[in-house]
Amino acid sequence: MTAADLVALRRDLHRHPEPAWREFYTTARIVDELETRDIDALYVGSEVLGDDRAGVPDEDERDAWRERAREAGAREDILNRLDGGQTGAVAVAERGEGPTVGLRVDIDALPITESDDDTHAPAAGGFRSENEGYMHACGHDAHATIGLGVLDAVLESDFEGTLKVFFQPGEERIVGGEPMANSGHLDDVDYLLAVHVGLDHPSGEVVAGIDGFLAVSQFAAEFTGSPAHAGARPEAGDNAMQAAATAIENLYGIPRHGDGPTRVNVGVIEGGTATNIVPERVRIEGEVRGETTELMEYMDTKAERVLESAAEMHGCTVERTPAGRAPSAESDPELRDLVSSVASETTGVTSVVENDHLGGSEDATFLMRRVQEQGGKAAYVGVGTDHPGGHHTETFDVDESSIGVGIDVLASAVVALGDRAA
Amino acid sequence: MTAADLVALRRDLHRHPEPAWREFYTTARIVDELETRDIDALYVGSEVLGDDRAGVPDEDERDAWRERAREAGAREDILNRLDGGQTGAVAVAERGEGPTVGLRVDIDALPITESDDDTHAPAAGGFRSENEGYMHACGHDAHATIGLGVLDAVLESDFEGTLKVFFQPGEERIVGGEPMANSGHLDDVDYLLAVHVGLDHPSGEVVAGIDGFLAVSQFAAEFTGSPAHAGARPEAGDNAMQAAATAIENLYGIPRHGDGPTRVNVGVIEGGTATNIVPERVRIEGEVRGETTELMEYMDTKAERVLESAAEMHGCTVERTPAGRAPSAESDPELRDLVSSVASETTGVTSVVENDHLGGSEDATFLMRRVQEQGGKAAYVGVGTDHPGGHHTETFDVDESSIGVGIDVLASAVVALGDRAA
Amino acid sequence: MTAADLVALRRDLHRHPEPAWREFYTTARIVDELETRDIDALYVGSEVLGDDRAGVPDEDERDAWRERAREAGAREDILNRLDGGQTGAVAVAERGEGPTVGLRVDIDALPITESDDDTHAPAAGGFRSENEGYMHACGHDAHATIGLGVLDAVLESDFEGTLKVFFQPGEERIVGGEPMANSGHLDDVDYLLAVHVGLDHPSGEVVAGIDGFLAVSQFAAEFTGSPAHAGARPEAGDNAMQAAATAIENLYGIPRHGDGPTRVNVGVIEGGTATNIVPERVRIEGEVRGETTELMEYMDTKAERVLESAAEMHGCTVERTPAGRAPSAESDPELRDLVSSVASETTGVTSVVENDHLGGSEDATFLMRRVQEQGGKAAYVGVGTDHPGGHHTETFDVDESSIGVGIDVLASAVVALGDRAA
Amino acid sequence: MTAADLVALRRDLHRHPEPAWREFYTTARIVDELETRDIDALYVGSEVLGDDRAGVPDEDERDAWRERAREAGAREDILNRLDGGQTGAVAVAERGEGPTVGLRVDIDALPITESDDDTHAPAAGGFRSENEGYMHACGHDAHATIGLGVLDAVLESDFEGTLKVFFQPGEERIVGGEPMANSGHLDDVDYLLAVHVGLDHPSGEVVAGIDGFLAVSQFAAEFTGSPAHAGARPEAGDNAMQAAATAIENLYGIPRHGDGPTRVNVGVIEGGTATNIVPERVRIEGEVRGETTELMEYMDTKAERVLESAAEMHGCTVERTPAGRAPSAESDPELRDLVSSVASETTGVTSVVENDHLGGSEDATFLMRRVQEQGGKAAYVGVGTDHPGGHHTETFDVDESSIGVGIDVLASAVVALGDRAA
Repeated sequence: MTAADLVALRRDLHRHPEPAWREFYTTARIVDELETRDIDALYVGSEVLGDDRAGVPDEDERDAWRERAREAGAREDILNRLDGGQTGAVAVAERGEGPTVGLRVDIDALPITESDDDTHAPAAGGFRSENEGYMHACGHDAHATIGLGVLDAVLESDFEGTLKVFFQPGEERIVGGEPMANSGHLDDVDYLLAVHVGLDHPSGEVVAGIDGFLAVSQFAAEFTGSPAHAGARPEAGDNAMQAAATAIENLYGIPRHGDGPTRVNVGVIEGGTATNIVPERVRIEGEVRGETTELMEYMDTKAERVLESAAEMHGCTVERTPAGRAPSAESDPELRDLVSSVASETTGVTSVVENDHLGGSEDATFLMRRVQEQGGKAAYVGVGTDHPGGHHTETFDVDESSIGVGIDVLASAVVALGDRAA
Repeated sequence: MTAADLVALRRDLHRHPEPAWREFYTTARIVDELETRDIDALYVGSEVLGDDRAGVPDEDERDAWRERAREAGAREDILNRLDGGQTGAVAVAERGEGPTVGLRVDIDALPITESDDDTHAPAAGGFRSENEGYMHACGHDAHATIGLGVLDAVLESDFEGTLKVFFQPGEERIVGGEPMANSGHLDDVDYLLAVHVGLDHPSGEVVAGIDGFLAVSQFAAEFTGSPAHAGARPEAGDNAMQAAATAIENLYGIPRHGDGPTRVNVGVIEGGTATNIVPERVRIEGEVRGETTELMEYMDTKAERVLESAAEMHGCTVERTPAGRAPSAESDPELRDLVSSVASETTGVTSVVENDHLGGSEDATFLMRRVQEQGGKAAYVGVGTDHPGGHHTETFDVDESSIGVGIDVLASAVVALGDRAA
Repeated sequence: MTAADLVALRRDLHRHPEPAWREFYTTARIVDELETRDIDALYVGSEVLGDDRAGVPDEDERDAWRERAREAGAREDILNRLDGGQTGAVAVAERGEGPTVGLRVDIDALPITESDDDTHAPAAGGFRSENEGYMHACGHDAHATIGLGVLDAVLESDFEGTLKVFFQPGEERIVGGEPMANSGHLDDVDYLLAVHVGLDHPSGEVVAGIDGFLAVSQFAAEFTGSPAHAGARPEAGDNAMQAAATAIENLYGIPRHGDGPTRVNVGVIEGGTATNIVPERVRIEGEVRGETTELMEYMDTKAERVLESAAEMHGCTVERTPAGRAPSAESDPELRDLVSSVASETTGVTSVVENDHLGGSEDATFLMRRVQEQGGKAAYVGVGTDHPGGHHTETFDVDESSIGVGIDVLASAVVALGDRAA
Repeated sequence: MTAADLVALRRDLHRHPEPAWREFYTTARIVDELETRDIDALYVGSEVLGDDRAGVPDEDERDAWRERAREAGAREDILNRLDGGQTGAVAVAERGEGPTVGLRVDIDALPITESDDDTHAPAAGGFRSENEGYMHACGHDAHATIGLGVLDAVLESDFEGTLKVFFQPGEERIVGGEPMANSGHLDDVDYLLAVHVGLDHPSGEVVAGIDGFLAVSQFAAEFTGSPAHAGARPEAGDNAMQAAATAIENLYGIPRHGDGPTRVNVGVIEGGTATNIVPERVRIEGEVRGETTELMEYMDTKAERVLESAAEMHGCTVERTPAGRAPSAESDPELRDLVSSVASETTGVTSVVENDHLGGSEDATFLMRRVQEQGGKAAYVGVGTDHPGGHHTETFDVDESSIGVGIDVLASAVVALGDRAA
């Protein structure tokens, strides 16, 4: 693809942002592109996902998004391969003896309404989100484009080995990484590169290896008690509101751990019916994190105890539904050094940062750990891009010139890895 | 009206249930009827309401309900008198020298989806709610019908004095009583009767005077803090969720008062945006009650302090919006005795209960107190009706035969009051 | 006894205030007096108490108080009958055919340091407490004196029937009523009178029957977790402080009951070792009350659930020790009327109040209910006395002239009851 | 001193453990020794402490400890220099041109009852604590001994420069470091060594530089409301128990900070009077910590807001009394390297650890920062010692052979520093 093609692809994806397990248009568009490449294998939908998936929307919602994708021009035959919202794809190019190198890009979008201000490039340029209320506000449109661009560049290179490009769904809800890691496609990968644009790094800067991913586990918890008239018979109710309030207070009070940072948050709440009814049902959504997976699990175990006890205290039950999760992971120094070295010689790269600390969570860590557990190496690479608004805000945008830079750095890294023994 | 007319009217109202400040069809239908009577004055909309009204929905919602009423056949000229959702009506019949007697009936419905089971008479009989999600689940359709029936009966009687029938909106949200009490129309009323059907009393039973209304004050409170990424910068947030949870725990812990029963409830909650964002905004809706207005105000003052302090504790602000409210009130023994005496001689009445205790709240108390403060007397009369489901449930229904009984008892009481000195 | 003797006795008891299960001097002094009377039976210590007693102090403390009593002149042979702190006595006088009439007086004191101000009569008059830190601040010294005075008066009267005077220990901690009610001595009582001086009624006023006793149950709850260094290893602790705080917040939030007043209080707390140690142990003492025994038990059940769940939530255990308790009870109108009638004819009585409402708790209710459950009648009689300071304050005192009035009213009532059929 | 003298001194101090601002015997014993040395200046009591001291006990308690010291043989003339509990001493030895080197040792003990088990060496050896309830359970008896030993060794060496030995009171309550740091005696110190034995390092091991001190701030907070009878008039009280419980729940819920570890603990609570009284007063003691002083101050600011708001919420006031505190600090690598180098050549040292992480707090950091702020260097040196029980437990003890090792390492370091330019 030419630079113009890459921009056009990115803008097309930008116009069709889709959240977790609803990336119908996005997957179809990517697969449509991949089928025109000289690759050796192409896996789609259920072929790239292990059995358990969290956060799958109900059939009505899936159907609505699928229909929307169809109307936007997605190919029917590809949509048929995405049953049950099983989105995503893996492309494989075998180019002789050599190591297997993986590149992971994510493809999903966020439930944010995009700015329609004239100063917002997508609005001014006519490629603002057409799925009102949803937006590529974290650059995954650029990531998917980079995935295809790297594939093309490697196909044209003298790379020796096997390249696998992972187009992962559901990163924003951290629900896509785990099933893709369990799909088997990672099991022969010797080197895995994951990529993210921006993260407050300017265009021209490359971060060779990002660390400091907090392990995370999200949950929804629904407290169910019994309603009662709050004036006449308050004693007849089992108050789910009191249970939830007690749980919230005590979740935030889980003891800090001496071994490293931990986090807890209750981010969403909803429940009750009327001011004069003892609330029968209150639902909260929250998350716990830890610097390591063990620390996250410490928090998770304590959180479960708080939820259960708070329910019991008020005669309620609580149903806890696990939602997305992700472990911690570290970039391998060896791979980081290779990326650093390659980047410093790439045109358009004006600055190379060896290492940075994320402080948030990412489910690329599932794929990284899968590779590392099998003896492979992994690195999470940052590609700077000037972004006017912050990540996850309505004015986020990418500097499209950095797409080419990202492709050059990553393709060079892949080629360089091909020269290594597996 | 014949008994058949009364049933037809009740069923028509039943098919068009409307909540507070949206009683467009209901008011129009009542006014349409009233205009055919030989009465001396008819006040509608803003003419029957004082200036301050709580719980008024926004214009879009008002317009939607008004349009729905129009489509259901409401007269355009009457709808034009209900601007801003100012619903309700007062009919005045002057019949010579004598006291002014008021009858208050309420006309609004509840946000409950009506049963469509065959065993539910309105469903079987074809007069189930046509406003899906709303239902006359507390018998106000029968109340409005009784109001017209009593007017007719009195008009045909040898009553001497003035009769005023108050068709009050917004009782379920306890927002209609206060502005109607402040309209001036109550200021010359010597005797006020309010009526309610059912309340677990069977058909044929009449309760001469109901007491035990808890004074109530409802509120909405919105906590506003600052969002932050819960993983990377939890310290940068001001957590509205923690503020709300602390408020809830402490609202329920307001000290019980030695002088009589008090109540507090947080019935509704909603807020936050995502599991990984420190919640910026959480909204609660609640209420406090007391056996007397003073006790309710004690609770209200304490609740305000809890809300303010909980916000401060977490660096948030809280905006407290008063919603509906109602004072306590007592039925006057003298008036109760008259109703009892009249009821015991009314055909169809099989049992007379002198006095009962409500245990809930009702904003008829605003009208009752207005009358009592001016030296008049008031009583809240119960008219038994077999109801298959409880009040405020999807299978509530009234035994239509009790409509006639209620009319007979109340009309007889009005006539008897006419014989008294004002 | 002469009026002077009565005052001397009261002052002697006043000088030796003793709390629950430590009334060694008091019991010995009373028994010493009783042995000089012409009575038919005298029961002491374990003979007047059922098996289970709450709030018994440990042996060291009992021994210390016993030794103090001995030093103050208590008879050794009587002290030997009070093993294990089993204090109290019952005197029985049989005077021919007739009903059995009981009179219950309580004898214990409070852990309050008595005023030594010159304006405080006991200090000025030289009969201030000699047990520093303890005080007869609720008039039980007068009650015991009245008990003896009534016995003497009845012995001198033409009373026909049996009189039993119950000298009950441990009322202030509400631990004495239950075991005395279970002793068997109440089982043949036809009429029971209990008496209390003061209660904001002036000298000369008599309250024929007091009602409105709240049923009460006190408890101590000790939360036990695990300590840990709060700086280095906070996660290693199980925090009894958080468990207690959660329990407290939620105890105060137990839903109010629609059937009548309920109360809850956590009155005492103590625990932890140092600011830098996760607290291993926190102890609270509290109580629940209800207008009826059922309402109190409702609160008690909820409180237990809160305590258990709060402990679980923080990995702690909780040991709940029941302390004192008392049911609700009502004075019988028939007996109240007789007291009222007798009082109005008694010299020194200037005003008779038929009925008053206590609003607190009293374990005379155990004895009253025991009698009522067997078909007997009971009344709780108030004898007014001017008291400079409030009950349970360091300047409380009784107007000694009211002792004689109380004796006259109660003795007259006993004699009048003797004229009735059992 | 001979090794036997050192052991005798350590055991004498061990027999007389004294807590913060009550180190009368200890200071007197040290000063008595120092006066026999050929030193150039000796400062005692108020001469070694800045003006503000937290945690000073009241006069009665100070007098009791002073009297106990006198009875144990402390010199009257020295005790007279310790007015107001101003304990501690600084010894200065000037030995020609050269840098000023400081050595800080702490001298106070803990409120722990020492084991009297035969397996506990002090009990078996006859030097168990004679101040029942207090114990040298953290080795400060060995520290003070090391301080004197190093002074002697340096006096006998060819050290050129000035040596200052700081005998600091009140470390366990972290109240002594700040006033000593503000005394002026640190202001010309070029190199400061602080020392601690044990810390889970075995005899023979030396830690050249310890880091990871959490900054800490302790507080006491007393909530004051109004009492009321919990049965009759609960509404009349302002409940300090609810205020404290709300504060505790929310203190533990202060948001974790993204920049590094923070801690909060409420370690002690006490309050209320009786189960039936709404508690008027509840006192808590707690602390906040942070990896840096800034993080600690973040926690402190939030904690203050929680305390204030919780009090307001329940109509109470809160008085917050700062107690001990300490900043964070780091050992200087340069000084650490010197200690490491010297230690590795010292007889008896079998292992040298370059660096360790404490994870707790220490107010030597006040002295370290004072020196570092003036351009000097500081290191916190660990001297391993086999200790049968953990620090702050009743069976803690030191291996006395490590006292000599500590003296040798530190004296050698002082001498080596003398060879440097200031």
